[in-house]
Amino acid sequence: MKLSIVNGPNLNLLGQREQGVYGYCSMENYFEEIQSRFTSELLYFQSNVEGELINYLQEFSGDGIVLNAGGYTHTSVALRDCIAALSIPVIEVHISNVAARESFRHHSLLTPVCEGLVMGFGLESYALALRFFEP
Amino acid sequence: MKLSIVNGPNLNLLGQREQGVYGYCSMENYFEEIQSRFTSELLYFQSNVEGELINYLQEFSGDGIVLNAGGYTHTSVALRDCIAALSIPVIEVHISNVAARESFRHHSLLTPVCEGLVMGFGLESYALALRFFEP
Amino acid sequence: MKLSIVNGPNLNLLGQREQGVYGYCSMENYFEEIQSRFTSELLYFQSNVEGELINYLQEFSGDGIVLNAGGYTHTSVALRDCIAALSIPVIEVHISNVAARESFRHHSLLTPVCEGLVMGFGLESYALALRFFEP
Amino acid sequence: MKLSIVNGPNLNLLGQREQGVYGYCSMENYFEEIQSRFTSELLYFQSNVEGELINYLQEFSGDGIVLNAGGYTHTSVALRDCIAALSIPVIEVHISNVAARESFRHHSLLTPVCEGLVMGFGLESYALALRFFEP
Amino acid sequence: MKLSIVNGPNLNLLGQREQGVYGYCSMENYFEEIQSRFTSELLYFQSNVEGELINYLQEFSGDGIVLNAGGYTHTSVALRDCIAALSIPVIEVHISNVAARESFRHHSLLTPVCEGLVMGFGLESYALALRFFEP
Amino acid sequence: MKLSIVNGPNLNLLGQREQGVYGYCSMENYFEEIQSRFTSELLYFQSNVEGELINYLQEFSGDGIVLNAGGYTHTSVALRDCIAALSIPVIEVHISNVAARESFRHHSLLTPVCEGLVMGFGLESYALALRFFEP
Amino acid sequence: MKLSIVNGPNLNLLGQREQGVYGYCSMENYFEEIQSRFTSELLYFQSNVEGELINYLQEFSGDGIVLNAGGYTHTSVALRDCIAALSIPVIEVHISNVAARESFRHHSLLTPVCEGLVMGFGLESYALALRFFEP
Amino acid sequence: MKLSIVNGPNLNLLGQREQGVYGYCSMENYFEEIQSRFTSELLYFQSNVEGELINYLQEFSGDGIVLNAGGYTHTSVALRDCIAALSIPVIEVHISNVAARESFRHHSLLTPVCEGLVMGFGLESYALALRFFEP
Amino acid sequence: MKLSIVNGPNLNLLGQREQGVYGYCSMENYFEEIQSRFTSELLYFQSNVEGELINYLQEFSGDGIVLNAGGYTHTSVALRDCIAALSIPVIEVHISNVAARESFRHHSLLTPVCEGLVMGFGLESYALALRFFEP
Amino acid sequence: MKLSIVNGPNLNLLGQREQGVYGYCSMENYFEEIQSRFTSELLYFQSNVEGELINYLQEFSGDGIVLNAGGYTHTSVALRDCIAALSIPVIEVHISNVAARESFRHHSLLTPVCEGLVMGFGLESYALALRFFEP
Amino acid sequence: MKLSIVNGPNLNLLGQREQGVYGYCSMENYFEEIQSRFTSELLYFQSNVEGELINYLQEFSGDGIVLNAGGYTHTSVALRDCIAALSIPVIEVHISNVAARESFRHHSLLTPVCEGLVMGFGLESYALALRFFEP
Amino acid sequence: MKLSIVNGPNLNLLGQREQGVYGYCSMENYFEEIQSRFTSELLYFQSNVEGELINYLQEFSGDGIVLNAGGYTHTSVALRDCIAALSIPVIEVHISNVAARESFRHHSLLTPVCEGLVMGFGLESYALALRFFEP
Repeated sequence: MKLSIVNGPNLNLLGQREQGVYGYCSMENYFEEIQSRFTSELLYFQSNVEGELINYLQEFSGDGIVLNAGGYTHTSVALRDCIAALSIPVIEVHISNVAARESFRHHSLLTPVCEGLVMGFGLESYALALRFFEP
Repeated sequence: MKLSIVNGPNLNLLGQREQGVYGYCSMENYFEEIQSRFTSELLYFQSNVEGELINYLQEFSGDGIVLNAGGYTHTSVALRDCIAALSIPVIEVHISNVAARESFRHHSLLTPVCEGLVMGFGLESYALALRFFEP
Repeated sequence: MKLSIVNGPNLNLLGQREQGVYGYCSMENYFEEIQSRFTSELLYFQSNVEGELINYLQEFSGDGIVLNAGGYTHTSVALRDCIAALSIPVIEVHISNVAARESFRHHSLLTPVCEGLVMGFGLESYALALRFFEP
Repeated sequence: MKLSIVNGPNLNLLGQREQGVYGYCSMENYFEEIQSRFTSELLYFQSNVEGELINYLQEFSGDGIVLNAGGYTHTSVALRDCIAALSIPVIEVHISNVAARESFRHHSLLTPVCEGLVMGFGLESYALALRFFEP
Repeated sequence: MKLSIVNGPNLNLLGQREQGVYGYCSMENYFEEIQSRFTSELLYFQSNVEGELINYLQEFSGDGIVLNAGGYTHTSVALRDCIAALSIPVIEVHISNVAARESFRHHSLLTPVCEGLVMGFGLESYALALRFFEP
Repeated sequence: MKLSIVNGPNLNLLGQREQGVYGYCSMENYFEEIQSRFTSELLYFQSNVEGELINYLQEFSGDGIVLNAGGYTHTSVALRDCIAALSIPVIEVHISNVAARESFRHHSLLTPVCEGLVMGFGLESYALALRFFEP
Repeated sequence: MKLSIVNGPNLNLLGQREQGVYGYCSMENYFEEIQSRFTSELLYFQSNVEGELINYLQEFSGDGIVLNAGGYTHTSVALRDCIAALSIPVIEVHISNVAARESFRHHSLLTPVCEGLVMGFGLESYALALRFFEP
Repeated sequence: MKLSIVNGPNLNLLGQREQGVYGYCSMENYFEEIQSRFTSELLYFQSNVEGELINYLQEFSGDGIVLNAGGYTHTSVALRDCIAALSIPVIEVHISNVAARESFRHHSLLTPVCEGLVMGFGLESYALALRFFEP
Repeated sequence: MKLSIVNGPNLNLLGQREQGVYGYCSMENYFEEIQSRFTSELLYFQSNVEGELINYLQEFSGDGIVLNAGGYTHTSVALRDCIAALSIPVIEVHISNVAARESFRHHSLLTPVCEGLVMGFGLESYALALRFFEP
Repeated sequence: MKLSIVNGPNLNLLGQREQGVYGYCSMENYFEEIQSRFTSELLYFQSNVEGELINYLQEFSGDGIVLNAGGYTHTSVALRDCIAALSIPVIEVHISNVAARESFRHHSLLTPVCEGLVMGFGLESYALALRFFEP
Repeated sequence: MKLSIVNGPNLNLLGQREQGVYGYCSMENYFEEIQSRFTSELLYFQSNVEGELINYLQEFSGDGIVLNAGGYTHTSVALRDCIAALSIPVIEVHISNVAARESFRHHSLLTPVCEGLVMGFGLESYALALRFFEP
Repeated sequence: MKLSIVNGPNLNLLGQREQGVYGYCSMENYFEEIQSRFTSELLYFQSNVEGELINYLQEFSGDGIVLNAGGYTHTSVALRDCIAALSIPVIEVHISNVAARESFRHHSLLTPVCEGLVMGFGLESYALALRFFEP
């Protein structure tokens, strides 16, 4: 299978910013390590630009998406429309337990159009979500 | 007259996605057909990126805009500010009757700064809106 | 085709009241002029009484309705039920851009059961709506 | 006893409109059939006009009312005031289970001033309500 | 001067219904008595039908209106539009102190387009309101 | 037919508590009397424990349920899920007109998944509801 | 009779501030003029301090109060409690139509405990309110 | 490790009720199958009674809990307090994507005190959650 | 006098869980100590099951109740109905100042039907509440 | 110890106003009686002026405050800030059960910054609160 | 120029209370220091009494006001009316970033009638605000 | 020091659009003038694209940011997350007093994570904000 992890705004800073919340490991290191645990082909894409995330999702030809949309999770109707139009499953992921943070993070526009949701396990949330495609 | 149809995120997928809602005709075919029905010069622009839509609107030198902002309709204060600053009329368009869909689509930030609104007629909504400029 | 323009409360005052908002042209003059622009048979009905509008809509035997329900747009569940029960298309029309006026005018009970919506073009909104039936 | 069934807007269309919701039987047929099942004198009144319903209720001299106010259920303070001023009991009736439909139908202005409520049994709701007066 | 008192739904029952709230005096007796206290020509109109109240207000040719719209006070956008279109002053009146009753009576759609408001003085509210025109 | 009346918390106190609201007759006496008025086999169950009500409903093998869930009406998603999973009809019942009491009693979680609702007739509400199964 | 007009914060500026809203006449001049129109003994008190208004109302020994509480109308539970504890009638007054101004002025904490309300007639609102005591 | 799957109300009906939503497999079969995929000791508990779930959680002496609280997810402050008082991690699980169902299911009282959340993968949600303890 | 302290869900964990909030003393030790400070007969009951609390309250034959309903304070209409039906006074107690904790703890369904409320004094809240019966 | 009872607006009227709610005993008599029941030095202060209450609290040098802020309980951010800045404990007191009165009395701005709360016991609420300092 | 810094309730405690939020410097010291940095005549006024602040603002004859209204910022319509009536500019100031504190501090009634707002810079907020008048 | 002014969408139009609100001076002219008033190195960046603003802020290596995010102020969780992750102070700036404009502009997502806020002084707001870094 060909799968892609897609990260939204500020997630390029993983391992640098607010380490109390997100931990010390960078996404690069984690992604390398994770590749050895799955047999699927794994791709990685990150952008701070809402529209570029939409472009990538529209053009991706693979079997599934693991998406952490960061701040766009709560505000982007455009991203939601995009996911609803895809024919492959999208699994929503959050590193921290967003329900335990500020109230504007409690509502996700994306969840109703995603296949499933995994959150609160730190970076391991990505691996758990990938298990959906490769149990 | 010189007019432009401007389409926002995911509207490049027209004719492909959710055909029950949006129909089977692609925007390309429809735009070609529509050009023969009006004497004005008609341009077409589409982008998934909120800021690129703003860039285009700011730089467009013509007589009017027919805008379907897609998902940004409901979330973009920036697009609203941009329209309010234009000196030419903007007509808001929606293909489907958004009032009959999810509640987060019921509120448009753009309507109060647009000249008028046409929605619910499928692709023909664009043509009806153009009639504003060329009755 | 046989079509009817239906106007709700206070729209008999068009051309007289609040001319800054509604313009100086009376509905009578406009209706005459509009008849010459369409080949369909056009009828006109106005009433201030909610139930008489429902009576008219129930009894009308034609091909389509262009409806400006005025103040009942925002309060009449009965009118909504009536439209939902009709087998011919109803196009909702507003002369001014109601989204740019008081907040209690922002919500229309009728839009979800109408085929489409045209608003903000002054009296020309009626003509644009009729184009739905006679393009 | 002398009792009246009173129907509000659009309920003259029973058996015709939205048959998935309201069934195929017309009110006329049902009313005839129901008369044979009760010994009380039964009257029937229907109007699409809010004020005519109020006129009828004010002028009715009998022992009880079975009222399906249709769309006015949710919007008419005037009808509520009228019922509160009557000295005979009014039983509120709905054919369908309005709590399972659109949210603007969930709130009834009339229930607090009615004696009781029966809903969700199709046309049989009227008969159940009449049993209040003739058990 | 030529002035009219206009009463909305159920106010024909004054002196009969809910006497704890509205008192024992009928509107007829009160109106007669009031005529002798003012030199202006006083007219009286009552209807339970929202649209007939609008018809009357549109057609009245006098110097001022004292309006108790009853239950329509809280629900009628159409009546509000009508008042806004009149060129003569309208004074809103309520017999009881509606702010001390049910919460759905606390909001009046009419007050912002009326010249003034008098409420809580029983039937004397009408006389106080007339003093606006004839101090 | 085999039918069961099911009563929720505090309804074992009928005839004892708040007699102004619920009357002086105990449920035991009423149930005896009611059995003689119907030919169906009638069972009776009451519990103050939310989960025991669910247990009973899941295990009941009969043709219909008449349910007064008392205070759980307004708070129990679990009871709602249980009713939605049953294959036999459930009729919701309330002794008093809950719409005329405190606002937290105005919303019933159960109504949308019940077949119908009868309320406001005192204990006779149970009998009216049973008439659904045995007219 | 002995009556007092009581004015709250900023009403000492009448005739000076925001003349478009409040007019050009000072309260002093108006009060003098008004005294000649009534036979009752009229007193006048103004304070910007919430607690001093309460002190005055508690200590006033007369037959009635005409109160314009200004900004405290919308925020003072203490003033409301004070009025509720008085044994003489209080008439609430506003110079302008507060329902046509900012939304935080639409709710009055005082109205439910006042005998009546007069608003929107400019300074004449005070005179109309006094007519309650001396018709 | 010693882990327990805990199921709340109505989840004993899995494989029987609403199969379009929950699938055809019973929990018993699934639990058996799942035991062979993990080396940890797995326990299973189900109850319809809120307080019994609390009792079980308080008394469980193991290393972690996978909890599907069913309808209590949205209403039980008591269950939340119980989880907050546990010293071992609790993973919240839902079989279906509750964000795509009725709005009263969108808010979980439990998520902020759970370690993580997995939902939307059908019964496989349990297995994914167990991977948290045994990757 | 015969009085009972009644504790709801999770309060059997007092002295064990979240000691920063609830302190280190167990309820058992505290109850023993408190018995020596009062001459009344003191009973103690705790349950995690909502319905068992209702059973106990219904069956208790004594002079007063001191109730800490824990998480059911905020969600149980059934418990509220039960208290309203008791003929002896119930004093509500909370160990911590719930107004300073999460917002869903700010609203108590029970307070309006209890005689009084004591909160924020740690375990001493129970003793203060008992002073109501034995000053 | 040196303690002060502080009363807010209108509480100087205790024993006079609304005796159904507050009882017949004056604060003076009660305060005298209470002094004999405690060994601490007790002071008493009352003011109708929000700022004078703040002045008093800021300047008081003692060991604790028992505060009934009356109407300022629900509106005064300034009083809340003042209490938060004190280094001695403040116990909030209400004579009646405010949760059973109007809804605008249900929210106290002061509770989160007070040490504890006692309400609903009539004047005895003051004594119970003092027991916090002198058990 | 002649300018005045005006401080509302509890701001006389600066340097004493909640030093984590407000810092250790007293307003007296800061005011002295600030005088040497500006050439304008600087005055200082503080009061805990809402009405005295209004008195001062009404009577101040100078060129500008720098106002920190403390807790009255969020509750005082009277202060707002006072500022709106002044003919000199008022600059609103907050020492801390109130948007990062409790939600009832997020809304300022004063901002819409002030010329500008400076907040979040500690005591230096006052100096920045004064730069408006003396850049 | 090295500081950057960052402007969001449509602020490239300063001096052109809505001159009644924003003034006639272009940002270019103002920026030049401002450079001569400070000794710090000043940079300027503007973009209409939300993600490009995030890119710039992430990559900027200097001592502080003065940010006017325009329409993204009210909608961008992504920008907020970005600011929260920066280690240098960000000062929020608005040219006009946004609290006096449309209500959707009253809430800023950015303020809680910014160091401070300056608004309402026209272009001079930028200079005042820079004074934070260079007093």
